[in-house]
Amino acid sequence: MSEFRRNPVFGNWILIDSQRNFGNEKLSAVCERVHSDAKFCPFCAGNESMTKSEILAFSDNPHRYPNTSGWKLRVIPNNKPILQVESAIKRQAYGIYDKMEGAGAHEIIIETPEHNLQFKDAPLQYFENIYKAVVGRIKDLRNDSRFEHIFFIKKYGSLPATIMQHPHSQIIALPITPKQVNEELDGALRYFKYKERCVFCDIILQGIDNGARLLAENEYFIALCPYASRYPFEVWIMPKEHKSDFDLISDAEISALAKIVKTLYSKLVLLLDDCPITTVLHSAPLKRRNLSYYHWYIEIIPEIAVFGNIDKGTGLFINPVFPEEAARKLRG
Amino acid sequence: MSEFRRNPVFGNWILIDSQRNFGNEKLSAVCERVHSDAKFCPFCAGNESMTKSEILAFSDNPHRYPNTSGWKLRVIPNNKPILQVESAIKRQAYGIYDKMEGAGAHEIIIETPEHNLQFKDAPLQYFENIYKAVVGRIKDLRNDSRFEHIFFIKKYGSLPATIMQHPHSQIIALPITPKQVNEELDGALRYFKYKERCVFCDIILQGIDNGARLLAENEYFIALCPYASRYPFEVWIMPKEHKSDFDLISDAEISALAKIVKTLYSKLVLLLDDCPITTVLHSAPLKRRNLSYYHWYIEIIPEIAVFGNIDKGTGLFINPVFPEEAARKLRG
Repeated sequence: MSEFRRNPVFGNWILIDSQRNFGNEKLSAVCERVHSDAKFCPFCAGNESMTKSEILAFSDNPHRYPNTSGWKLRVIPNNKPILQVESAIKRQAYGIYDKMEGAGAHEIIIETPEHNLQFKDAPLQYFENIYKAVVGRIKDLRNDSRFEHIFFIKKYGSLPATIMQHPHSQIIALPITPKQVNEELDGALRYFKYKERCVFCDIILQGIDNGARLLAENEYFIALCPYASRYPFEVWIMPKEHKSDFDLISDAEISALAKIVKTLYSKLVLLLDDCPITTVLHSAPLKRRNLSYYHWYIEIIPEIAVFGNIDKGTGLFINPVFPEEAARKLRG
Repeated sequence: MSEFRRNPVFGNWILIDSQRNFGNEKLSAVCERVHSDAKFCPFCAGNESMTKSEILAFSDNPHRYPNTSGWKLRVIPNNKPILQVESAIKRQAYGIYDKMEGAGAHEIIIETPEHNLQFKDAPLQYFENIYKAVVGRIKDLRNDSRFEHIFFIKKYGSLPATIMQHPHSQIIALPITPKQVNEELDGALRYFKYKERCVFCDIILQGIDNGARLLAENEYFIALCPYASRYPFEVWIMPKEHKSDFDLISDAEISALAKIVKTLYSKLVLLLDDCPITTVLHSAPLKRRNLSYYHWYIEIIPEIAVFGNIDKGTGLFINPVFPEEAARKLRG
């Protein structure tokens, strides 16, 4: 059972999802159970019957039956989805508060049949397949008019309490536009109204002109450490051509994106001792297409334990590494 | 050297502080060095000469000399402050970006001479002293007109990469009002304009009336799990009387606050296996006093590793525990 609840001060929606059985047992016991379960990996080839029926799959075999082996990538509904596709979206009051059922879609991209694939060993096609799957899922989920926004999130490496070690990522389709997304669009629109230019196009130009934070560049993309990085070694990958919607990407651009992403991941895991990495796609909300003031990009955040970590509760980020220094190390 | 840099899209200021020597060595080496340094604890009694000169101290001995032993609590400037008191506040452009020197104050409250004091063993006076010190420091720092906002942050327990195990907390005085604080005030004002009531007073009333999320109550304070909790077992402690500024607290209220805080910390560490806990004070910005629409409160966040952890990068919080369930367990 899950429910969106709106913070009456900040106005953001928090998703509360009680399926994890958190609290009926000691927390440490829950964590142990989860890790031992991972020995029987439902994401591995041959275990297709352990997952829900696949939504999308890539295979070299055109005659492959669904939910059998022989695939390169599979997309499945999450076994314990944080959101239910079937739910209606009913907003209602609860005294001074607002709530809504946890409607939406929660899908898993099983990125490869290889259980232990590391970024450093992953071929280009692995990254291409992931982005092709994301495009496919966004295009399909657009057909459900209840959805306002889609997140693509990839966690790499041994994060605490991660259920699945098998390489995978998540697609989350939401019946709301999250507050942070609205803020990003509002900020970009404010800049556009004042300058009559896309702020992200300006970020790209200054990144190339100055060069101190530039990491890599190819025909279609640049990678840089953003000027006001919140986290050490934060990396953005941005399309040079102005586009607000990720799913308008071409096949040639997907190849170029896979190349630059692979390069950056390789540099990050080498420099940062194979630390966990979070990747998030920023793209315009589903019902606001072809925006002149917004620009899709990919944000890569290494999960380094940082002294202090005071942003929790305060919202104040303290980054111990200047992005120019991070870029110098990542280039070198 | 530290510098504020403004995110050109979101408009928040990020503090970049390069003093931590992060990156000149392998990250793992940095962490090891920090932990071994902690053997020679500069916060322990007898080691006063290892810290900068104290700003405030509580002692039972009225004749105690500053920076000698015999204290109950000391406040010192941080040895490696993220902000420099001496800096001027010069805002300047950097191409499309904005920056500012890292001016402000960064102080450490050494809460007790006892290196290994645990919450469960801490006497009431320990908590009273902390809050008295916070009041004293806010009142003093108000005299510096450069400061706009003060944060009080306490980290308890063995967080990753925490430098100091000795019980301490931080006071950070900023030359800006952080975006999250402005958002909180804007949200509260929006509610006030519509309802002509303080949203926090309404939160308190509904918390008491309904009772399902109520944790504890005394003459001056209530403790509850907020309706739209972002984190499992999140707790708010709120003064029943409407006040926007923490430093207007009376001595009687400090005693009552210490009691309810001690009760809640004890329950949290017992229920959650002595997990790390972050505490943040929310109070009005320094130059906006006696606000009818804002209400100070203390936010307590247990640092439990949560499956998924997708708020990083997306801003979408997924909480696996309903606050009513968290409250039931914390009351029981």
